[in-house]
Amino acid sequence: MAGGSVFGRNFTVSTFGESHGKAIGCVIDGCPAGLKLSEEDLIPYMDRRRPGQSEFATARSESDTPEILSGVFEGTTTGTPIAILIKNSDQHSSDYSNIADVFRPGHADYTYHEKYSIRDYRGGGRSSGRETAARVAAGAVAAKLLSSFGISAKAYTRSIGPVIISSYDEAEANDLNMPDHDAYLKASEYIRALREKGDSAGGVIECVIKGVTPGLGDPVFDKLDALLAHAVMSIGAVKGFEIGDGFEASLSSGSANNDPFTGDGNGNINKSSNHSGGILGGISDGSDIIFRCAVKPTPSISMSQKTTDTKGNERDIIIQGRHDPVIVPRACVVVESMADLVIADAMLSRPADRLKDITDIFRK
Amino acid sequence: MAGGSVFGRNFTVSTFGESHGKAIGCVIDGCPAGLKLSEEDLIPYMDRRRPGQSEFATARSESDTPEILSGVFEGTTTGTPIAILIKNSDQHSSDYSNIADVFRPGHADYTYHEKYSIRDYRGGGRSSGRETAARVAAGAVAAKLLSSFGISAKAYTRSIGPVIISSYDEAEANDLNMPDHDAYLKASEYIRALREKGDSAGGVIECVIKGVTPGLGDPVFDKLDALLAHAVMSIGAVKGFEIGDGFEASLSSGSANNDPFTGDGNGNINKSSNHSGGILGGISDGSDIIFRCAVKPTPSISMSQKTTDTKGNERDIIIQGRHDPVIVPRACVVVESMADLVIADAMLSRPADRLKDITDIFRK
Amino acid sequence: MAGGSVFGRNFTVSTFGESHGKAIGCVIDGCPAGLKLSEEDLIPYMDRRRPGQSEFATARSESDTPEILSGVFEGTTTGTPIAILIKNSDQHSSDYSNIADVFRPGHADYTYHEKYSIRDYRGGGRSSGRETAARVAAGAVAAKLLSSFGISAKAYTRSIGPVIISSYDEAEANDLNMPDHDAYLKASEYIRALREKGDSAGGVIECVIKGVTPGLGDPVFDKLDALLAHAVMSIGAVKGFEIGDGFEASLSSGSANNDPFTGDGNGNINKSSNHSGGILGGISDGSDIIFRCAVKPTPSISMSQKTTDTKGNERDIIIQGRHDPVIVPRACVVVESMADLVIADAMLSRPADRLKDITDIFRK
Amino acid sequence: MAGGSVFGRNFTVSTFGESHGKAIGCVIDGCPAGLKLSEEDLIPYMDRRRPGQSEFATARSESDTPEILSGVFEGTTTGTPIAILIKNSDQHSSDYSNIADVFRPGHADYTYHEKYSIRDYRGGGRSSGRETAARVAAGAVAAKLLSSFGISAKAYTRSIGPVIISSYDEAEANDLNMPDHDAYLKASEYIRALREKGDSAGGVIECVIKGVTPGLGDPVFDKLDALLAHAVMSIGAVKGFEIGDGFEASLSSGSANNDPFTGDGNGNINKSSNHSGGILGGISDGSDIIFRCAVKPTPSISMSQKTTDTKGNERDIIIQGRHDPVIVPRACVVVESMADLVIADAMLSRPADRLKDITDIFRK
Repeated sequence: MAGGSVFGRNFTVSTFGESHGKAIGCVIDGCPAGLKLSEEDLIPYMDRRRPGQSEFATARSESDTPEILSGVFEGTTTGTPIAILIKNSDQHSSDYSNIADVFRPGHADYTYHEKYSIRDYRGGGRSSGRETAARVAAGAVAAKLLSSFGISAKAYTRSIGPVIISSYDEAEANDLNMPDHDAYLKASEYIRALREKGDSAGGVIECVIKGVTPGLGDPVFDKLDALLAHAVMSIGAVKGFEIGDGFEASLSSGSANNDPFTGDGNGNINKSSNHSGGILGGISDGSDIIFRCAVKPTPSISMSQKTTDTKGNERDIIIQGRHDPVIVPRACVVVESMADLVIADAMLSRPADRLKDITDIFRK
Repeated sequence: MAGGSVFGRNFTVSTFGESHGKAIGCVIDGCPAGLKLSEEDLIPYMDRRRPGQSEFATARSESDTPEILSGVFEGTTTGTPIAILIKNSDQHSSDYSNIADVFRPGHADYTYHEKYSIRDYRGGGRSSGRETAARVAAGAVAAKLLSSFGISAKAYTRSIGPVIISSYDEAEANDLNMPDHDAYLKASEYIRALREKGDSAGGVIECVIKGVTPGLGDPVFDKLDALLAHAVMSIGAVKGFEIGDGFEASLSSGSANNDPFTGDGNGNINKSSNHSGGILGGISDGSDIIFRCAVKPTPSISMSQKTTDTKGNERDIIIQGRHDPVIVPRACVVVESMADLVIADAMLSRPADRLKDITDIFRK
Repeated sequence: MAGGSVFGRNFTVSTFGESHGKAIGCVIDGCPAGLKLSEEDLIPYMDRRRPGQSEFATARSESDTPEILSGVFEGTTTGTPIAILIKNSDQHSSDYSNIADVFRPGHADYTYHEKYSIRDYRGGGRSSGRETAARVAAGAVAAKLLSSFGISAKAYTRSIGPVIISSYDEAEANDLNMPDHDAYLKASEYIRALREKGDSAGGVIECVIKGVTPGLGDPVFDKLDALLAHAVMSIGAVKGFEIGDGFEASLSSGSANNDPFTGDGNGNINKSSNHSGGILGGISDGSDIIFRCAVKPTPSISMSQKTTDTKGNERDIIIQGRHDPVIVPRACVVVESMADLVIADAMLSRPADRLKDITDIFRK
Repeated sequence: MAGGSVFGRNFTVSTFGESHGKAIGCVIDGCPAGLKLSEEDLIPYMDRRRPGQSEFATARSESDTPEILSGVFEGTTTGTPIAILIKNSDQHSSDYSNIADVFRPGHADYTYHEKYSIRDYRGGGRSSGRETAARVAAGAVAAKLLSSFGISAKAYTRSIGPVIISSYDEAEANDLNMPDHDAYLKASEYIRALREKGDSAGGVIECVIKGVTPGLGDPVFDKLDALLAHAVMSIGAVKGFEIGDGFEASLSSGSANNDPFTGDGNGNINKSSNHSGGILGGISDGSDIIFRCAVKPTPSISMSQKTTDTKGNERDIIIQGRHDPVIVPRACVVVESMADLVIADAMLSRPADRLKDITDIFRK
């Protein structure tokens, strides 16, 4: 599909909206009929991404209340498109008049200008992180669908700058989404120090998907890890993706990196390690799917920066307004949502893999 | 599209074939008319991937001669599908009878078995690295197309195990595709030591794409780097992908990671650094596009390994036959081909970005 | 794409909404940047489809005011998704309680029930003709885009029941959209007679697309007339499609049906007849594109009908409420909209047909 | 997908090849694993389309032997792409040198010239009816798949010129594929009279699909009849398509055209008539699916015709060589194949319509 705002082949999501337009939202086509669904299911996901809730998040005040416009009848999905609308309530457009003809470094202002010759410069328009709210709404529907199959994805902060977690005790208990309390305290200091200078931090998000049975995903071009990479790299600030041992695998040897299979002689087969990250040859192998992604430091900083205007005149720019000194914590649910979309999509074509499964359905 | 073997929206490639079947090949739909093309254009690319050419590559003897069956008339593409056939000449199927009901660790044997309940086990069938020969044939057509626009991609070995290049003097001059001669010598020793034990090595491939003007790629889900990640992660042994500073960016700060724009006041705009890797907000920014991917150690090793058969009985397996102790050098052209496919595809929708460009064409 | 509610490859439209839900609407992805667009452009199209405006149309009162939520900045498209919302104002749900578990003959009640096991029965839910309002909103955007290229589509009523037009004098001047005044008068009588019995009428719509230069459309599966057939047959009540001489061509001979080419020796080539309907081999030939489609009689009639409930118990049904005795006049703009969507989509890939055209753009 | 030669979302077929190139063929991606398949299954279908077998067909001698190159292992599909190759054995290229720069009326020569500026003029190149041999090969695989579900399509000649069948006694027993012997005799005379003058005939093909259970197909844009129309209209000479009563429905009234439902009170529901042609609201209703398409007279005639060369100079053209005076009989299997492709595709997404069906599969 053209334009770039449509994702998924079976569970197809189309998003729309700019940061400071009237609304953002999404349309999901292909969600099976018979799933219990209401706005209540979406709100916990929206809240995890919502600004204004932590010391480390922008104070922009958006209620981010999703409204389901279609596709649900008396609390159950009907198989028809599910449209979800999220109105933009806080549109301080005046904040952005100074960037109408100047390119913010690290942002997409320049590239949108070159591509389209016109752009909604208010808050980054379509390239704003706000767009991800629509992804999270769609991801919440996918998560609800996956829960029917016993599948769940969970993303958390693995590192902020150089501070890496070494335990997994405290997931979501703190406002950095770091499951290691000591790391959380150190990371908080790290961020505060950068913020004081008007600077910002990056980090790494890890996501674990549990409950995926073997055989999910396609071979060749649409390998399940390739689709996860596509999905996660499509999040604005993500600069890297790895599955299982990832880049570390390049340092290993075949004998150490191969996961031995184990079995009980009754058809139950497992792996005694999980260097693969749950995917072999693009298809799930029954182990947890584990991937990580690198998030760059928030490009919006309050320090003065060198840039140009649209004519190429050199300019200094100081970005005003409210900005997250780190977006990693709020981005976790976006990463998780993209994973949910990929897995849900793959589940919906799984019944057609084998002739026998299809004939079994229609024999009923 | 279903099945996983179709790639690309505008320059659409469909591949087929198993390692030890009659032939492999591809069909390209959407290549513009008017491109000079012959088998001669493909052979240099095929040769870079072809086995049997180096101390570090399997001795399997395949001529890998591509035959263009359609879409080219009197040496020029006609706009209709270009089918390319590569016959399998060396099919020692007997080599593989011992793995008919046993799963090789690190391979897709088990996952194909779970997905389809049937698989062509000879040489890994569809999951064999041999499938990438068809990608390289298609990539060579894309490369020829891109050369019309002054665009070229170049992939080389950045590291083998812990040995990383520190210079770029000698690209393709050696059989590891390592542009740094000292690193090449050290990496050769590293591989030989592993091979002697019947083990294998991994590494990292880097790819640089030059000549891409600003404005290529789509926003939101189909960001150019997301498509590159999809394309490159779809190569069998790849476990990680990063663009620009990649995972290192997570350690940086906004002020250090943002690339300042510079200009001459006459509309010429550049960046004074390239931490972004040539893409901002999913759209090319005019700098070189630079990405890296991690390749795991060759899973086929001659050491004995623990595994099971299809019934879950535990078994020891020793994989016989000829195997690359490292596939990184031969994989470089595959990575480059996937990059070529992504960029070619993006170029073909670029003319429709702006109304003015389209009307200009039709006014002619 | 799954689900059936996404249309188009380059100018991609996703529609949503049920007859008696909160709203219907569409999201357009892939519209080029730089097109002047506002709600004012949509309203004349919406008005042509809107109920309550004629003796022969349902009195359902819907203002059908489209609201553009995104993708337009300061009156110009930005290249990002254009979301259009149309709220449902007149939701007399109580009218439909009697059909909750009974299948209306000629409607999709039964087939939705079989497919999904759940359906929004109010007014036909997703299968209601109301869904076409979203198509018309999208079609209006496509029409505006096409006007930039000098292309326009025009659909009108060719026949109502047995009454066929024989002149083209009065397009849109009457409330049957019949360009022949005598035919209009006869058709009005025909409809009134049926309506009096509680019955309904069908007809044929003809559409002429002017200004399409030769070379538009693809060969083989995505022939331009195949896409038009797909688009038009996707309108609920349409049962047949023909291009050019259509079914009449089956009665002709090759010598009579072939259109001779004529020329001036300076590269200007025309056809001296247009039996082809403007498309040869799936590609536009420069003549007007002319097609027709058959519209079945409105299935909602007030006569008593035989049917069953969801358990298969036989029932008599009398459909209450307000219904068009003929939908042909209001369907004209829907047919025209679908044609606009197809032609706009085809235009956007046209610049990539020939290498020379693409290089010309990027050379600028 | 671009280019026009890829069809289907779940059962995806990509065809390639020109009339006088080295070979034509297809690649099918998405065929489920576990289907028994060999070349023997394809040959009866290929033979029905093959030239040289009847008084009314071209004498071009092609063995049309399909070779399966991949996707089948030990006689069973593996779920990976099925490539089928058909070599061109009879390439009398010299026959076509006289049309290198002249446009044959009724053919796609001119439109290909305008679209691509280059074309393989030999035998029409890609626009030749020979391309349909690849469709038939793919259709035969789809037909084999559908037979697993008890579904079968059957196409036959309904009319040749004005001669329409009135009985269904003799399907395929004669070389016009006309099931009515009297009509067959009259039609033979009709064709011979035209052929004697160097002229050609058209006709209508009817196709009946039996065994489709209710609930197949999608709502809105991808209605099952819209996809059938797309598929069938994509066959070169087809100028019209209609489902059920088709254009006749425009003359009917709602009370006559609506099919009453009947039932036994135990959940078994049928229709007492089938004006709908087996599809309501785009979704199968359990009755036979019946459609017809109009085939224009063969454009290749041996009479002298007016045309121009590529520069617009007016020319007389006499098309030499061997041509079918009517292609309707041989086109029947092409129509049937396209129907098989559409139904097979729809079957593969059917299991994902309802949450319950999917969970049932994965519970096993």
